[in-house]
Amino acid sequence: MSDGTVAMPASLIDDSLNPAGDVALFTDAQWLDALLRFEAGLARAQAASGLIPAAAAAAIARACAAVQLERTPFVERARRTGALGVGLVDPIKDRLSHQAPEALPYLHWGTTTQDAVDTAHALLTQTALAALLRELDGLNAALRTMARAHAATPIMARSLLQPAQITSFGLKCAQSAAALRRSTDQLRHLAPRALCVQLGGAVGNRAAMGRQANEVEQALAAELGLSACGHSWHTQRDAWMRLAMEVAVCTGSMAKLARDWSLMSQFEVAELAEAPRGRTSSAMPHKRNPVHCMQAIAQTHPIPGLAATLLASMAQAHERALGEWQAELSAWAPFWRHAHAAAAALRLAAEGLQVDTARMQANIDALQEVVYSEACAHALAPLAGREAAQQAVERLAAQALAQGLPLSHLLQRWMDDTHGAEYTPLAQQALAVATDPRRAVQASADNCAVLLDGLDSATPEQEPEDV
Amino acid sequence: MSDGTVAMPASLIDDSLNPAGDVALFTDAQWLDALLRFEAGLARAQAASGLIPAAAAAAIARACAAVQLERTPFVERARRTGALGVGLVDPIKDRLSHQAPEALPYLHWGTTTQDAVDTAHALLTQTALAALLRELDGLNAALRTMARAHAATPIMARSLLQPAQITSFGLKCAQSAAALRRSTDQLRHLAPRALCVQLGGAVGNRAAMGRQANEVEQALAAELGLSACGHSWHTQRDAWMRLAMEVAVCTGSMAKLARDWSLMSQFEVAELAEAPRGRTSSAMPHKRNPVHCMQAIAQTHPIPGLAATLLASMAQAHERALGEWQAELSAWAPFWRHAHAAAAALRLAAEGLQVDTARMQANIDALQEVVYSEACAHALAPLAGREAAQQAVERLAAQALAQGLPLSHLLQRWMDDTHGAEYTPLAQQALAVATDPRRAVQASADNCAVLLDGLDSATPEQEPEDV
Amino acid sequence: MSDGTVAMPASLIDDSLNPAGDVALFTDAQWLDALLRFEAGLARAQAASGLIPAAAAAAIARACAAVQLERTPFVERARRTGALGVGLVDPIKDRLSHQAPEALPYLHWGTTTQDAVDTAHALLTQTALAALLRELDGLNAALRTMARAHAATPIMARSLLQPAQITSFGLKCAQSAAALRRSTDQLRHLAPRALCVQLGGAVGNRAAMGRQANEVEQALAAELGLSACGHSWHTQRDAWMRLAMEVAVCTGSMAKLARDWSLMSQFEVAELAEAPRGRTSSAMPHKRNPVHCMQAIAQTHPIPGLAATLLASMAQAHERALGEWQAELSAWAPFWRHAHAAAAALRLAAEGLQVDTARMQANIDALQEVVYSEACAHALAPLAGREAAQQAVERLAAQALAQGLPLSHLLQRWMDDTHGAEYTPLAQQALAVATDPRRAVQASADNCAVLLDGLDSATPEQEPEDV
Amino acid sequence: MSDGTVAMPASLIDDSLNPAGDVALFTDAQWLDALLRFEAGLARAQAASGLIPAAAAAAIARACAAVQLERTPFVERARRTGALGVGLVDPIKDRLSHQAPEALPYLHWGTTTQDAVDTAHALLTQTALAALLRELDGLNAALRTMARAHAATPIMARSLLQPAQITSFGLKCAQSAAALRRSTDQLRHLAPRALCVQLGGAVGNRAAMGRQANEVEQALAAELGLSACGHSWHTQRDAWMRLAMEVAVCTGSMAKLARDWSLMSQFEVAELAEAPRGRTSSAMPHKRNPVHCMQAIAQTHPIPGLAATLLASMAQAHERALGEWQAELSAWAPFWRHAHAAAAALRLAAEGLQVDTARMQANIDALQEVVYSEACAHALAPLAGREAAQQAVERLAAQALAQGLPLSHLLQRWMDDTHGAEYTPLAQQALAVATDPRRAVQASADNCAVLLDGLDSATPEQEPEDV
Repeated sequence: MSDGTVAMPASLIDDSLNPAGDVALFTDAQWLDALLRFEAGLARAQAASGLIPAAAAAAIARACAAVQLERTPFVERARRTGALGVGLVDPIKDRLSHQAPEALPYLHWGTTTQDAVDTAHALLTQTALAALLRELDGLNAALRTMARAHAATPIMARSLLQPAQITSFGLKCAQSAAALRRSTDQLRHLAPRALCVQLGGAVGNRAAMGRQANEVEQALAAELGLSACGHSWHTQRDAWMRLAMEVAVCTGSMAKLARDWSLMSQFEVAELAEAPRGRTSSAMPHKRNPVHCMQAIAQTHPIPGLAATLLASMAQAHERALGEWQAELSAWAPFWRHAHAAAAALRLAAEGLQVDTARMQANIDALQEVVYSEACAHALAPLAGREAAQQAVERLAAQALAQGLPLSHLLQRWMDDTHGAEYTPLAQQALAVATDPRRAVQASADNCAVLLDGLDSATPEQEPEDV
Repeated sequence: MSDGTVAMPASLIDDSLNPAGDVALFTDAQWLDALLRFEAGLARAQAASGLIPAAAAAAIARACAAVQLERTPFVERARRTGALGVGLVDPIKDRLSHQAPEALPYLHWGTTTQDAVDTAHALLTQTALAALLRELDGLNAALRTMARAHAATPIMARSLLQPAQITSFGLKCAQSAAALRRSTDQLRHLAPRALCVQLGGAVGNRAAMGRQANEVEQALAAELGLSACGHSWHTQRDAWMRLAMEVAVCTGSMAKLARDWSLMSQFEVAELAEAPRGRTSSAMPHKRNPVHCMQAIAQTHPIPGLAATLLASMAQAHERALGEWQAELSAWAPFWRHAHAAAAALRLAAEGLQVDTARMQANIDALQEVVYSEACAHALAPLAGREAAQQAVERLAAQALAQGLPLSHLLQRWMDDTHGAEYTPLAQQALAVATDPRRAVQASADNCAVLLDGLDSATPEQEPEDV
Repeated sequence: MSDGTVAMPASLIDDSLNPAGDVALFTDAQWLDALLRFEAGLARAQAASGLIPAAAAAAIARACAAVQLERTPFVERARRTGALGVGLVDPIKDRLSHQAPEALPYLHWGTTTQDAVDTAHALLTQTALAALLRELDGLNAALRTMARAHAATPIMARSLLQPAQITSFGLKCAQSAAALRRSTDQLRHLAPRALCVQLGGAVGNRAAMGRQANEVEQALAAELGLSACGHSWHTQRDAWMRLAMEVAVCTGSMAKLARDWSLMSQFEVAELAEAPRGRTSSAMPHKRNPVHCMQAIAQTHPIPGLAATLLASMAQAHERALGEWQAELSAWAPFWRHAHAAAAALRLAAEGLQVDTARMQANIDALQEVVYSEACAHALAPLAGREAAQQAVERLAAQALAQGLPLSHLLQRWMDDTHGAEYTPLAQQALAVATDPRRAVQASADNCAVLLDGLDSATPEQEPEDV
Repeated sequence: MSDGTVAMPASLIDDSLNPAGDVALFTDAQWLDALLRFEAGLARAQAASGLIPAAAAAAIARACAAVQLERTPFVERARRTGALGVGLVDPIKDRLSHQAPEALPYLHWGTTTQDAVDTAHALLTQTALAALLRELDGLNAALRTMARAHAATPIMARSLLQPAQITSFGLKCAQSAAALRRSTDQLRHLAPRALCVQLGGAVGNRAAMGRQANEVEQALAAELGLSACGHSWHTQRDAWMRLAMEVAVCTGSMAKLARDWSLMSQFEVAELAEAPRGRTSSAMPHKRNPVHCMQAIAQTHPIPGLAATLLASMAQAHERALGEWQAELSAWAPFWRHAHAAAAALRLAAEGLQVDTARMQANIDALQEVVYSEACAHALAPLAGREAAQQAVERLAAQALAQGLPLSHLLQRWMDDTHGAEYTPLAQQALAVATDPRRAVQASADNCAVLLDGLDSATPEQEPEDV
């Protein structure tokens, strides 16, 4: 591309919210280049199958290498004709007509605009998927490191945004890592089924190339590093959408992570903090904004709406849609860029995350051992009777929170008052066990270890049989 | 902006699908310029209210006029800090520290990034709205012209994609014109309520400017040509969204129009055609693609998904959202550009539309007068009895379609057979009236006239009282 | 309806999440009743215009009053024919053919299924809107009460989920109240434009009723308590959607409120609590779940997706859509029920809300006056010089948080150390003012008062002129 | 369930649009039953693992079998407490306290509401998936039958809603069949990964059951016929969403089919018709509405919006979400019911489809052989020179359409005029071959055969390797 526009296709705002915005995905330059690669590759594949002369293919490939697709005339041709391909073919034709006019009839032969555009999009998507997987793998590695380090680090588990019981920070990390790993496994599984050469000709039946169509498709796929699925997918876009929907699912797992971390980064919770970055606000020097979480939330937010747009575009009439295909093309690039940006933001957040285990414990302590109510009742049941223990715990739990005194302290006093001094050591011991965070965290540590084992094993988890 | 990127913010594909893509909306350059206008305008407004020295304001305004905001460092600062404002303020500060260091404390005083960004977005939205209204007004004018010309042009009305009864092409145009006019009226009504200066300071209470905040807001609004709503709308974005949702509704009306026209442009229907544009496909010279309809469908398609994204972004926590505000910013520009592009495509389609009234009549004729069944039964009831007439019509309607003979012909034969020659002239006359397309179209012509009257009247339709 | 199904149309889950689920909205019984009201009302209106005999209209009205529409046969007819109207008309016809066969030709005369269904939906929507407005008005009253009571109650304002500066709890309430009031004003304004009788006949041109169509429409509207817009809106659904989109915007404002309150109800923040309700979890007696916030979040969550579905249904082909109209009907009831349930949940939350002003202050105090950094620097500038004061504040703010000591304390010590005892009283006084929460909250109290004034004034805010 | 409400959970409208509405999916009765199955199954599984006494388990199972969960009190409890489980546990508890009080401590032991609700939803989803697969398999069988029958039936392929070139109706069917088969394969693959028992306890770490949790999970899964994934998926819902997103993709393929068929069913195209059903409109006896297509379009329409709602619900905070989980529950049932209804409608459409091959050919003929332009130019090139042939074809193609004369006729005349009589037989022969529909359809027939082979083969297509 030579008309001076390096053409950042993302808006200033999207770029500003994307810590990995320098990774070029779906830029205009890449797009035009991919279109040229399609034309050159097709000619070579057709020559290899004997459909067109080798000299013509060589001339076409040379022209594609030499031609400069300019954005402005490309766009103008597309606007005027409604066809994205004219702006691609005409400049090559111009060049050929001077350099190798005898190759002209073989340019873009047996193919159609949609073949070129869909194949180009598959190439750019391959790049985007690789970039996304790179970030997800990095994020996952960081999560697993934290999971290992904090498998038994007690943290308050919360349900409905209220403290519930004890879990471990490591388990939280391992659960997210396992979810993301299921997505990366699935993305790697789906990619070769989705990233296929498109080769259908005018109406998807490959009429011009006849029975050599398959051979051409395979040669072209090999040259471009894509798959050949053996049929046109002009208006049957399910494999393509299946890949996108996995990206959407994966982004949902990322959004969960970003929400958790941003909640844990609140000043009043303060269990996590992102790596410090210079001052951002002179008026508010105390702020420690979870910037990468913000970026991840902003970048995952549009995915459900874009997924809906993509799904709704599948009703593509007959052999080429009037608008729905074009709408899919338009939504495709931002969809992938948002997902990639979200993964990058979370990877950066994870790599710099500051974990305040003391504060995690302090937040537990603030509940005055009330989270151990169930365990305390169990512990005292043999000494005081099940019902009496249960009732005492309920009554004193409220008191513990109201007075800011540990539940075990109040229970001990109650035992002393009601059962006398001889029970004191037994009750002390029982309550100490019941309110021991290390005991409480054990189940989570075990669960964390199981998940980590699954993630560490070289082979994917044993597969259940299909229905 | 001086770093060489004219920065088309729309992607190559979006641009290619947008016949009005040369209209600059939400470009990076406009965005950076609007941010600078905010800072300069704020300083001047604060000086006018005596909050800062007039000399400082003048120095700040000079710096804003002179400074070159470069995209790359702007983006880098935003990525690092998570704040969009640093990249704006730092370059002005640099300049001031050389030219007028005494003005430094007054730069960006009492304000915050979100004030600058939201106000800039209001400015860019004002431009986008004006461009959208221009296209919609043009489309509406073309629709009204067609409505007047074809108020009594018979066309097959269709329900569930099947022929139903006769209507007029003019009524179809007038109905769309009326719907779009309701939207343009509403957009003009909502604009001054939505396109407001944002001025809330760090947390939306305008603390720094105290009781002069209102005065500053009004002066700033006057300078920028925006409204002043008297309060911060940092995280209460309903007025802003109300405007966007009207754009979404309007786009729905456009999508209906594009669908109707594309259906009527099918080769097998052929009642409409877009203005001819040169050959687009050498392999298929017969194609007459409804390119502007395609563009309109492609551009309206993403609006529901984007509207969902915008609505979902309204849950902005506390005094500035972590991600949702930024997500709204990201979705805003494409939302408006798609709507504008759709309107432009339909305006162009409307202005060049070729209306084939003969084919409209031929498509009616192909139904062999079966669409007049009800009228025929009514017409013959006085002669043959209601029940007999009804039964004959039902039986012969099926026969008319099967044999390709006009229903009136078969009914006449039936009357002759069953009632004898003396009834022939009466039946002929009755059936001629019953199957006269001019009579059938009368109701639609009347409805069309009423709608056109409403559209032509200078004042908006009489307002119902509110509930 | 007599076949025993009281037919709660909401699912068990939706009902369980809806504290106002006993309010009947869009039940099957209401729907069938509204269809019958349409048929009876239409006959009466047509008789009043002289289009059909008065006796026939009376007979039809009697039949409609007497007939029992059974769900099962209604549904079966609709499934078989694809037309929702057959199940309505056939039972009335059955009755008429026994009681008043001479009225049969006048039943459902000049109308079509869509007229009946859309008008019935307008009637049910009127009920739903009234219920929604009732909840919103109640919520708004509760918000205004809190705004008045807490106009000057200091609370930490938060941006990006981090503490920012001081605002007042009253201002937060007033901002939400103002947003919701803008929505209720708008809903009341749009309702008479949206809740219109549908009367278009087979293809929307009212052909059968000719020039008396308007008169019939107005009489029918008067009888049913709906509006008459003077034209069919079969496939131009903008006014209808405009009302729904305002509901969506309003729901966005509700979602913001639910999010804020749920965040403020976290154990670690504890500034708000919903009214206590009995124990919900024996294992976790300490939990104080914000149940109404949960309900509000669950009920607002689906609105953006449903809004997208509704907007996408607007592309209704020709004179009746193949599927899109029906899809709109399907999404309409859940859309309104979710909005109503969300408003009810928040109204209940607001009415029982426990506001812990001491904890609000404690959460401010936990920041060790660092939120007053800017004010402290200003206060000390006259004594210590601007630059020195600024630097000291920055350095000591970090120390204050790290050591858990108030910033004013550290600054006072620094002043004493660097400027000597004579400055002590001046510095003390300056710092006391700078860190006074009552001073800090003043701007918010003022803003709150302005918003409350606007809400209390009988007339709506002065209207800006349209563009 | 005994309080008289058989409770069709679908609305009257949804039911009316659903030809398979009698299949009970996600009814309240099924839901309450599944909850009871969970409690009984859990007790038995825990007893088998020795965690609770066998007698207690038996008593609990008996109570679950005997108890009558009433909708109204269930809902009231849920509304009051915000917890869906109270309404489940309390009635069992009531019964146990009379029949077997010693079992009380073991009821709902070590588990939580979300375990019961998610597991119940998995059970109901299993039923829904089976019903969906049944319809999809039936649709697919009908498509394959048509594909085989019409592999070489010429039909106009259309791009941008305009005639393009010849394809075969069989290929169109086979392409849809292949897409749907990819979806059913995928659904069967994903089901055992998604339809898992939920067993996490209060915070997802299975703390109460300790190291026997896995054993209990597997026993419970075996009893209920679900999978055991070895970990809690309380707030990591990716596997669950992956299944739903495949349903969404599949629905996109269905929407494409419904659109194609409805377009081909237009009166002016008339290549297809649904099986006749009695008269639906007395005013329009000629209508042949594609009712099942309408149902399919109406039922697929909401899927993208619901998919967005589901995806957006994935950001579930910490160990149980405040609202997002509940929102997912709410959207889940309509999502599946819509998909099932769409598949049923298309299956019925396919089974009754009337294929008018004569009309398909007539629609081709209406283009006056212009669709063979490319072939004609090729055919005449050896006789008249490539360029001359090309130019003649272009000029005469326009004339053929304008004058309604076959292109070969005009080309023959041109050859006769320009080359003389001796070329006549050669040209005739060449043109006859070039305009032979059987030749033109060959490529499509071949493609159709390949797809059918793939569908008929017992084993799935050879798998590409993962990336």
